Amino acid sequence: MWMDTKAEEKEASRSRASLGQRVLSGLLFFTGDMEHLNRYMQDKVFGLLLAVWGLRGVSRVILANNPLSGALILAALCWASPWQALLGTLGVLTSTLTAVIIGQDGAEVSGGLHGFNGMLVSMLMGVFSSAGDWYWWLLLPACLGSATCVFLFSGLAPLLDRWDLPVAVFPFNIVIVLYLLCTGPYNPYFPHHPATPAGPMEINATELMAVQVLRGIPLGVGQIFACGALGPSLLILGAVLLYSPLLAAHALLGSAVGTLAGLSMAVRHESLYSGLSGFNGALGCMAVGGLFFTFNWRTHLYAIASAFLSAYTDIALSNLLGTVGLPACSWAATMIATLMLLLSGSLSTYRIPMGQVMSPEHNLRSRKQWKAGNTAEGESTDV
Amino acid sequence: MWMDTKAEEKEASRSRASLGQRVLSGLLFFTGDMEHLNRYMQDKVFGLLLAVWGLRGVSRVILANNPLSGALILAALCWASPWQALLGTLGVLTSTLTAVIIGQDGAEVSGGLHGFNGMLVSMLMGVFSSAGDWYWWLLLPACLGSATCVFLFSGLAPLLDRWDLPVAVFPFNIVIVLYLLCTGPYNPYFPHHPATPAGPMEINATELMAVQVLRGIPLGVGQIFACGALGPSLLILGAVLLYSPLLAAHALLGSAVGTLAGLSMAVRHESLYSGLSGFNGALGCMAVGGLFFTFNWRTHLYAIASAFLSAYTDIALSNLLGTVGLPACSWAATMIATLMLLLSGSLSTYRIPMGQVMSPEHNLRSRKQWKAGNTAEGESTDV
Amino acid sequence: MWMDTKAEEKEASRSRASLGQRVLSGLLFFTGDMEHLNRYMQDKVFGLLLAVWGLRGVSRVILANNPLSGALILAALCWASPWQALLGTLGVLTSTLTAVIIGQDGAEVSGGLHGFNGMLVSMLMGVFSSAGDWYWWLLLPACLGSATCVFLFSGLAPLLDRWDLPVAVFPFNIVIVLYLLCTGPYNPYFPHHPATPAGPMEINATELMAVQVLRGIPLGVGQIFACGALGPSLLILGAVLLYSPLLAAHALLGSAVGTLAGLSMAVRHESLYSGLSGFNGALGCMAVGGLFFTFNWRTHLYAIASAFLSAYTDIALSNLLGTVGLPACSWAATMIATLMLLLSGSLSTYRIPMGQVMSPEHNLRSRKQWKAGNTAEGESTDV
Repeated sequence: MWMDTKAEEKEASRSRASLGQRVLSGLLFFTGDMEHLNRYMQDKVFGLLLAVWGLRGVSRVILANNPLSGALILAALCWASPWQALLGTLGVLTSTLTAVIIGQDGAEVSGGLHGFNGMLVSMLMGVFSSAGDWYWWLLLPACLGSATCVFLFSGLAPLLDRWDLPVAVFPFNIVIVLYLLCTGPYNPYFPHHPATPAGPMEINATELMAVQVLRGIPLGVGQIFACGALGPSLLILGAVLLYSPLLAAHALLGSAVGTLAGLSMAVRHESLYSGLSGFNGALGCMAVGGLFFTFNWRTHLYAIASAFLSAYTDIALSNLLGTVGLPACSWAATMIATLMLLLSGSLSTYRIPMGQVMSPEHNLRSRKQWKAGNTAEGESTDV
Repeated sequence: MWMDTKAEEKEASRSRASLGQRVLSGLLFFTGDMEHLNRYMQDKVFGLLLAVWGLRGVSRVILANNPLSGALILAALCWASPWQALLGTLGVLTSTLTAVIIGQDGAEVSGGLHGFNGMLVSMLMGVFSSAGDWYWWLLLPACLGSATCVFLFSGLAPLLDRWDLPVAVFPFNIVIVLYLLCTGPYNPYFPHHPATPAGPMEINATELMAVQVLRGIPLGVGQIFACGALGPSLLILGAVLLYSPLLAAHALLGSAVGTLAGLSMAVRHESLYSGLSGFNGALGCMAVGGLFFTFNWRTHLYAIASAFLSAYTDIALSNLLGTVGLPACSWAATMIATLMLLLSGSLSTYRIPMGQVMSPEHNLRSRKQWKAGNTAEGESTDV
Repeated sequence: MWMDTKAEEKEASRSRASLGQRVLSGLLFFTGDMEHLNRYMQDKVFGLLLAVWGLRGVSRVILANNPLSGALILAALCWASPWQALLGTLGVLTSTLTAVIIGQDGAEVSGGLHGFNGMLVSMLMGVFSSAGDWYWWLLLPACLGSATCVFLFSGLAPLLDRWDLPVAVFPFNIVIVLYLLCTGPYNPYFPHHPATPAGPMEINATELMAVQVLRGIPLGVGQIFACGALGPSLLILGAVLLYSPLLAAHALLGSAVGTLAGLSMAVRHESLYSGLSGFNGALGCMAVGGLFFTFNWRTHLYAIASAFLSAYTDIALSNLLGTVGLPACSWAATMIATLMLLLSGSLSTYRIPMGQVMSPEHNLRSRKQWKAGNTAEGESTDV
């Protein structure tokens, strides 16, 4: 009997463990890159495929690659502004469809690589438009701009491929700057607000409020999607957390670093409060900390350096482009991340080849396995 | 007798046909790239060689490569303004001679590849000069600028060759911008007009005149040579027609697309009337429609897309550079054509390797022959 | 006896010759690249190594590579302004140390390649600062800026290596422009003077003084280190002379050409007097005349052309960047030297592969030996 109880207990604990494991694996099922989804997706209708590609594209904006994260982000955008969510959805679908039509690589399209630039262009057109929400004519340039992103993506890829670099958001940055230049502030059809540079601080500035500045840190994550409300920003952070906790931590860290850089350069207070000071830092930090490099304490330090460089470069570019009324968008983070990928020396030993980049946790696991494999091999050859 | 008449008729018709054929082949002799000319040109005096290289260079400005077209264009420029024609001739000769002196590749020189940038620089210096015609001091910077183009051409070639891209008019665009920046509007020796940006439309604008806008379409072809008169522009179009009817059609189409783009962005009326809105569209359309890609309905659609992109990018750049008083020149068309050549996907399958680019009609024929050859081979291997 | 005297005389003359030779070889010991120093430097303490690397870095600014030249230059800077010398020393040490820490290539570090950009950034921050000398807070951005140069150097190297191009002072030019943009003229912590563009000449300008203009020529050599005093400039020229007389001659020649170009464009008189018109010409002339190309009369002509191009491009860029209050730094010379290295044709036959570039005299000697070797080989194969 006694033994029986023990065996029962053991079995119960085992079943409990297996239940826990099952729940955990069920949860894990929805995290990371969700590669397994691709197997289920074969032979599905085109509409469903397009939806998944689009959602991956939405999550790609914030360096994730997970349809569920994409859905969460879309919900957050809808919460913040339905018009912006509509523009974003239109952008991601238009550019993905354009990529299909002009015959881009199938793996790229299904990975959402042709969606995120179009989404950003479309949303930013809405943000800068001074014609108010639900100005339906804006859908025309939004569609054209999103389609143009695919041309730029496809054209820049062979240039950057030579150094195994990602195209990243270069197309978005180019297209939105060209659109704003093309229309100009007083265009009769598509008027827009001129961008205000980050600094210098106005003379009779009120005192800086610490709470507001701290609030700007999570807002910096939301500003990657041009979203300036706290609730949706937290939901976007949650979407990144679902994809990869490491990436979410680096996003917050980078935004904090960006805010610090902004403080050190005495930028305008609104820039700190709205999170605009933080978002380039967040992107720069995420790219280096775990995504394109295996995570460890060294790459973590490089990620912080990358965040600082991105933030300072962003202030510089926003001051430069502000003289002609243009925003700095995410030029700074894109260029600094590209620079980091080009670096030789100790950082380059942790670099993950562009074709094998997945979620930071996956990168970490595969590195360990590869190392273990190498050691085992080394031992077996020793014998 | 009856049979005789028939035979006679037959013979007469044959001789008529052969006469027609001879006239036709005589005409065809002067169209396309006139490669056969190179055979006759061996062992000729240097002056004659230089003239032919120069005329090829003149036609290269508008993407043609035919000495007769070059002569027609030079006549058109002389008709529009003898001073401009003199500057252009000086530019094309100076840069071709510089290329010979600094030892550039002989095939490039004899193909006129070192002439067209110098010609454009020299002519545009004349156009922007505010010192009036026949200001002889201008010949000094014209010569120096044209010679500099050869340095830039030779320096950019190895960079762009890696992706099999043409240097195109990048040297011209760089040199003219540097010249205008260097002298500035109030230079005591070489004063020039500051450029006026394309948009936005002035407030109390008069109504748009449709006839004037339509007139701007052929003027857009002339504006490739900075020529704003209708007669010479039509003659230039004729010169393109002589080289290749397909190219001429795309030039007009592209200019129309550019004008449409200008209308949609409400640019200044003068910009539409003078053809300045159209010429980047024309260049972008010509490059994709037949020249660098085999002509078919797909590449035709891409050519229209390229024209739109070139025209909108031109408006954007002209607004940007206008803030410092600089013209946008043909930066837009050059960059968009380069982008199109880099594109992967369905367009790239029709791309002609840079070394084999000839007139669109020739490209089309050689593609067909190559295809036929392939099929025949396929069949023969089947048997 | 008579014979004895003769023999004595002979011996005496021999010993005198050997003394002269010894003095000469002793002098020659300190000229050129001082490669032999590297052998003595093994197993030395890190402090001493760092000092030598730093001094090589200091001399690298002016395209030399000799620790003694570096020490002379540092002395000249100390003479001109001790604060500037301190900033320069800090910059060169910070960037060299950063390179060691982030694991850059050892040969590059010991050759001083990671020092010169940091030194320039640090010194130029001091020059543009409007907070006066001994403003200790400036050491913070100076250190950060110098460290950033190493990142840029390491990141740009793989891009430029494809065409066997040097990174040169691109990192310095990028970082200083970003710093000035980032802080802006009214920054509460790091205020700076806005740069004044080179031209056009003010209206009620006084007459040009020929002596002052001639004085600007040696000052142009000093301006490479942002040093505007005559004595230190001459000492800097002496430091170059120690490394290589050919390089020193080209530095003066280039500065004269730059002044000539400035005169022809009627730039502001102060620009000519202070040597700011000359220093880009000097750099452009030095790079082509002997350093990256074997010296002969042809490359000498190209060096003059390069000086003219650098000087004119500098005027153009300084007018462009001056509109937003930025200096043109040495962008012009860096870009023109890069262009010259890319050139095909007769110049490229004299190009020295980047890995074998040493002092012009050494380049000349090794070319001769290599030629002689080739001829001898040719003869031996003939026999």
